[in-house]
Amino acid sequence: MSRLRGFASDNNSGVHPDVMRALQNVNVGHAVGYGDDDITQRTILKFKEIFGTETDVFFAYNGTGANVMAIQALAKPYHAVICPETAHINVDECGAPEKHAGCKLLPVKTDDGKLTVEGIKAYMHGIDFEHHSQPRLVSITQATELGTLYSIREIETIAAYVHQNNMYLHMDGARIANAAASLGCSFKEMTVDAGVDVLSFGGTKNGLMFGEAVLFFHQNTQAVKYIRKQSAQLHSKMRYTAAQFEALLSNELWYKNASHANEMARKLAAKLGEIPEIRITQKVESNGVFAIVPEEIIEALQQEFFFYMWDPDKSEVRWMTSFDTQEEDIDTFVGLIKEKIAVLA
Amino acid sequence: MSRLRGFASDNNSGVHPDVMRALQNVNVGHAVGYGDDDITQRTILKFKEIFGTETDVFFAYNGTGANVMAIQALAKPYHAVICPETAHINVDECGAPEKHAGCKLLPVKTDDGKLTVEGIKAYMHGIDFEHHSQPRLVSITQATELGTLYSIREIETIAAYVHQNNMYLHMDGARIANAAASLGCSFKEMTVDAGVDVLSFGGTKNGLMFGEAVLFFHQNTQAVKYIRKQSAQLHSKMRYTAAQFEALLSNELWYKNASHANEMARKLAAKLGEIPEIRITQKVESNGVFAIVPEEIIEALQQEFFFYMWDPDKSEVRWMTSFDTQEEDIDTFVGLIKEKIAVLA
Amino acid sequence: MSRLRGFASDNNSGVHPDVMRALQNVNVGHAVGYGDDDITQRTILKFKEIFGTETDVFFAYNGTGANVMAIQALAKPYHAVICPETAHINVDECGAPEKHAGCKLLPVKTDDGKLTVEGIKAYMHGIDFEHHSQPRLVSITQATELGTLYSIREIETIAAYVHQNNMYLHMDGARIANAAASLGCSFKEMTVDAGVDVLSFGGTKNGLMFGEAVLFFHQNTQAVKYIRKQSAQLHSKMRYTAAQFEALLSNELWYKNASHANEMARKLAAKLGEIPEIRITQKVESNGVFAIVPEEIIEALQQEFFFYMWDPDKSEVRWMTSFDTQEEDIDTFVGLIKEKIAVLA
Amino acid sequence: MSRLRGFASDNNSGVHPDVMRALQNVNVGHAVGYGDDDITQRTILKFKEIFGTETDVFFAYNGTGANVMAIQALAKPYHAVICPETAHINVDECGAPEKHAGCKLLPVKTDDGKLTVEGIKAYMHGIDFEHHSQPRLVSITQATELGTLYSIREIETIAAYVHQNNMYLHMDGARIANAAASLGCSFKEMTVDAGVDVLSFGGTKNGLMFGEAVLFFHQNTQAVKYIRKQSAQLHSKMRYTAAQFEALLSNELWYKNASHANEMARKLAAKLGEIPEIRITQKVESNGVFAIVPEEIIEALQQEFFFYMWDPDKSEVRWMTSFDTQEEDIDTFVGLIKEKIAVLA
Repeated sequence: MSRLRGFASDNNSGVHPDVMRALQNVNVGHAVGYGDDDITQRTILKFKEIFGTETDVFFAYNGTGANVMAIQALAKPYHAVICPETAHINVDECGAPEKHAGCKLLPVKTDDGKLTVEGIKAYMHGIDFEHHSQPRLVSITQATELGTLYSIREIETIAAYVHQNNMYLHMDGARIANAAASLGCSFKEMTVDAGVDVLSFGGTKNGLMFGEAVLFFHQNTQAVKYIRKQSAQLHSKMRYTAAQFEALLSNELWYKNASHANEMARKLAAKLGEIPEIRITQKVESNGVFAIVPEEIIEALQQEFFFYMWDPDKSEVRWMTSFDTQEEDIDTFVGLIKEKIAVLA
Repeated sequence: MSRLRGFASDNNSGVHPDVMRALQNVNVGHAVGYGDDDITQRTILKFKEIFGTETDVFFAYNGTGANVMAIQALAKPYHAVICPETAHINVDECGAPEKHAGCKLLPVKTDDGKLTVEGIKAYMHGIDFEHHSQPRLVSITQATELGTLYSIREIETIAAYVHQNNMYLHMDGARIANAAASLGCSFKEMTVDAGVDVLSFGGTKNGLMFGEAVLFFHQNTQAVKYIRKQSAQLHSKMRYTAAQFEALLSNELWYKNASHANEMARKLAAKLGEIPEIRITQKVESNGVFAIVPEEIIEALQQEFFFYMWDPDKSEVRWMTSFDTQEEDIDTFVGLIKEKIAVLA
Repeated sequence: MSRLRGFASDNNSGVHPDVMRALQNVNVGHAVGYGDDDITQRTILKFKEIFGTETDVFFAYNGTGANVMAIQALAKPYHAVICPETAHINVDECGAPEKHAGCKLLPVKTDDGKLTVEGIKAYMHGIDFEHHSQPRLVSITQATELGTLYSIREIETIAAYVHQNNMYLHMDGARIANAAASLGCSFKEMTVDAGVDVLSFGGTKNGLMFGEAVLFFHQNTQAVKYIRKQSAQLHSKMRYTAAQFEALLSNELWYKNASHANEMARKLAAKLGEIPEIRITQKVESNGVFAIVPEEIIEALQQEFFFYMWDPDKSEVRWMTSFDTQEEDIDTFVGLIKEKIAVLA
Repeated sequence: MSRLRGFASDNNSGVHPDVMRALQNVNVGHAVGYGDDDITQRTILKFKEIFGTETDVFFAYNGTGANVMAIQALAKPYHAVICPETAHINVDECGAPEKHAGCKLLPVKTDDGKLTVEGIKAYMHGIDFEHHSQPRLVSITQATELGTLYSIREIETIAAYVHQNNMYLHMDGARIANAAASLGCSFKEMTVDAGVDVLSFGGTKNGLMFGEAVLFFHQNTQAVKYIRKQSAQLHSKMRYTAAQFEALLSNELWYKNASHANEMARKLAAKLGEIPEIRITQKVESNGVFAIVPEEIIEALQQEFFFYMWDPDKSEVRWMTSFDTQEEDIDTFVGLIKEKIAVLA
């Protein structure tokens, strides 16, 4: 890639300087392994301050790890997980949920990556019938893989239906900070207060080097420590996972990073809006822009700014902004697009 | 823990300054995710320089992750893995190998953590008999979980038997640097040249923040990238895993760290040797000291220097040294032991 | 149930007298277990006569067992199986394929239970991309779960596409005899000759007490005996599984049973066709009739002839005929329906 | 095999005539599938009469199927199952327990196939320590795979220890009838009354064509129906499994078959006792005889009476008697042995 920064993914960005500093700060002497150290313990308390004291916190290495821990904790192999077809757990984890939990995923087609009660209901049959995998977990992603957001009210509505039907609600929060910043609400309002039972709280896409946390709000979590270890998600030098989260949750770093990325996406979208050959396909509610782009310019664009095709059949691309995206990056990129399009004409 | 450094585990130590510096150095701009970046690619080349160009390198988050990737790559669910009863894969991974690979582990009792052809042979029956799990992989740990070492000759002997019987040889190298430094040989002589087929190359216990690598020496590894992803071991911001290994493999950092830890273990053992109430139970060949200690002093010792009991029934403990262990730590610790024992008399 | 025979399922019928006689005939003295007996060996030869000498035959207890053996043999955990949404493996095995093989199922919506190349193509992206489960197996059911049939040409077309894309074609033949009888072709023409790679050959729904067979046409099957044992599908007293198949494949019993059942379904459909309040929803090509029935009469009907709802939302039911269905059963049943409907008016 | 009956295994024998008759008797008309039929329901009641009304009964196809259902019901993947090294679940199911339940098996060496509290205790460490698989189930086989028996007192002692340690006791009763007949006690005294929590009740080795039952004595079994279906152990035409057990449990058929087989084993052992070149290696308490036999005669013997080597290194064989073993079979076999030995001299 010839450019310093691009729009391929928020995980292409680096580590925020505050996070890097936190890593250095805890790099003193020995610390007990596997989470029994002071840094981990105080970071867990920080999560409890934010989400409520009943919250149980388990750090993991990455998002797939966090998600499979959550699913294994709440679903048995004969259970099913209902999720949007575009869910990361469904299309971007190489079948890890099925492999780790042994259960079935039931994908719901959506236009915008957002599940609805209607969509869930399509799978609510065969209950107590041993021939069918039993729906047990509903998984929503906030912000969604398409950059859209559930309102608090929408989450509450889903949660109410889920609980009425003796199921649990999982939220994949790989980009939860972008969602909270955009909605202007607290993490708690959008999760435990809205009825979420278990949350994969993302860090890597918001300025950490690595690390996610699985938060259980009011479940029996006695088994989770074994599930984490067996899932190869237990970091021996845990202080270095915890310290990153401590930094992220301090001085509103999570908010600053996320709201900046969101703003950059809005700006990118606004500037793209001036180009008639580009059609934005999803609401820009967090830090992603999805757009249909003239096929002929894509390869040339990618050579300078690498990014992923979202749907090659439609010539639809995904552009992600990040905590470190600069306005000049946007200007350069949009300028390049205009240039390539001009040549087409 | 009241002391800055202790002897509980080599993963209680922190991150070596050179490694921390490497992390900062690569923290510039964006990099393609999942290993398609320059830093990862040049670190893989470094491994190939050391182990041979045919080597395929896959980074993982931790030792359990590396081991289950290696096992899944080479063993099917109807296969068995023969290993010493004390192997990390057998007793310290909460059954991760069985869970991930679906296969059976066949544990061999040993006195010193070292497998022998004799020990393997005890399980070499029922071949081609569908009622029995078929032995397919033999796993040895170098240095062993008891701090002992296989000589190159011993590895060759095991490898020859393993290959004659249509099996593969896995080496769990969580402490491979300590082994190579102690034997005074290269990594290559002790592994691929001696007949090892797949190696879990450890970093965390030798000064990294996190990270292991799985090295396949001459296998078809087309499936491994999927296995890694599905096993939740694929780091999105891979440059930060790779950069640590690059530092470790540069300027002989791996050797300096490991040989220092080994020397500290020898010194600790030598000083303990002067105390008649302490009996050292295993050869001190790498960075661990195993000893039988008067039961009455253990709790008091642990209050100042936390460490793990190895075998409570025998009052046997494990003390590990690390790249950052100082001679004064040893003096203080041995002094404390003498003091506690004096009180006993 | 107050009636001797009903239309709930072809597995509600009993054991054909010829099959029962075969069980008694082989009940003499001892026989080596697990398939190394003469009866099993000669039954395997019978299958080879029918399907070709390269065919490898493995008996299983039931359809789910046969299907998970086939899937485990040809798909790894990071693979995906593409199938119609209505496939038995997808909706009626309580997630057994995901649990046993660890892989993902990719369901394709269809109107008639029949997969098309178009439907398969919708999932043919992300190839070689480690984040996606890799499509490896396509599974079709013949006759389908909706009573419809693939023509030989349709199977060939699917097989050609499947093989071009480096995948395998599995046929779930729980009702394969009904299909062959209806198409008027041999088993071989409809399977191996048309490009099927592995077949679950059903027995239980066509007059056996229990038992299915998995047939591999040109695969390396060295692993299958272990997969069968580990999947708890290896019958110790195998002669009693084999003898049933020997009876089924002798004297065209399979054909007589299946074509009778098919004829009964056609007659049932014809008589239902006279009732304007009943709408038949699928082509009646094998031994099942799917129909939309006035909701008000269903419970009353079920009290006399138990049967399953297919889609409660649409008031759609499934009626299956069997080798032992009698014309008088149809007359009585249709009479009852008319009677109940008359009351409605 | 040139002989009508041999001593290879009690599963080489056929189906008892009373069982075959029962299969024919229920072969009338249709019956609801999957166990919702009258025959299955009344057979379950028969089990409840024998074992107590709290007993939950689930039929399975075979012993491996029954065992993996029991293990999955009571152990999670992070649990361990402690069993004798010679347990069928450990050495004769091709790793099915690990594959299905994902858990670890902890084998205890014994001389006679019988577990003791001492043997269990060797694994009772690392409790609540997330690095270790947590012991959750203890499995004993009655009669053992070596033909020996636990006394009721021995079972009670194990059960008491197991329950004190928050574990469950599983009994693999593949030959439970032989055990009860030999001990002269009821099934109930030896199982639920003695503290067994879950029992695999064997039928195939005592005159059935196929079929086992899993009995839970006081557990929450809501999940078991799903586990059975997903484990491919749910017989659609269930009446034919149930009818066999109904026959076995009627007119004391189980007792007659088992006590006859036991008596034949005792007679075989007695006659072998007269041959100084043969050394019987295990107590003959049920229907098996284990003996060290001159190596030179084994192959010749096997040509006339096929049987399995138990331990080739020791020239130890296993001979099993069955419900249909005749005294003349024993006379012929012992005569043959004597003849072959005479030639040696």
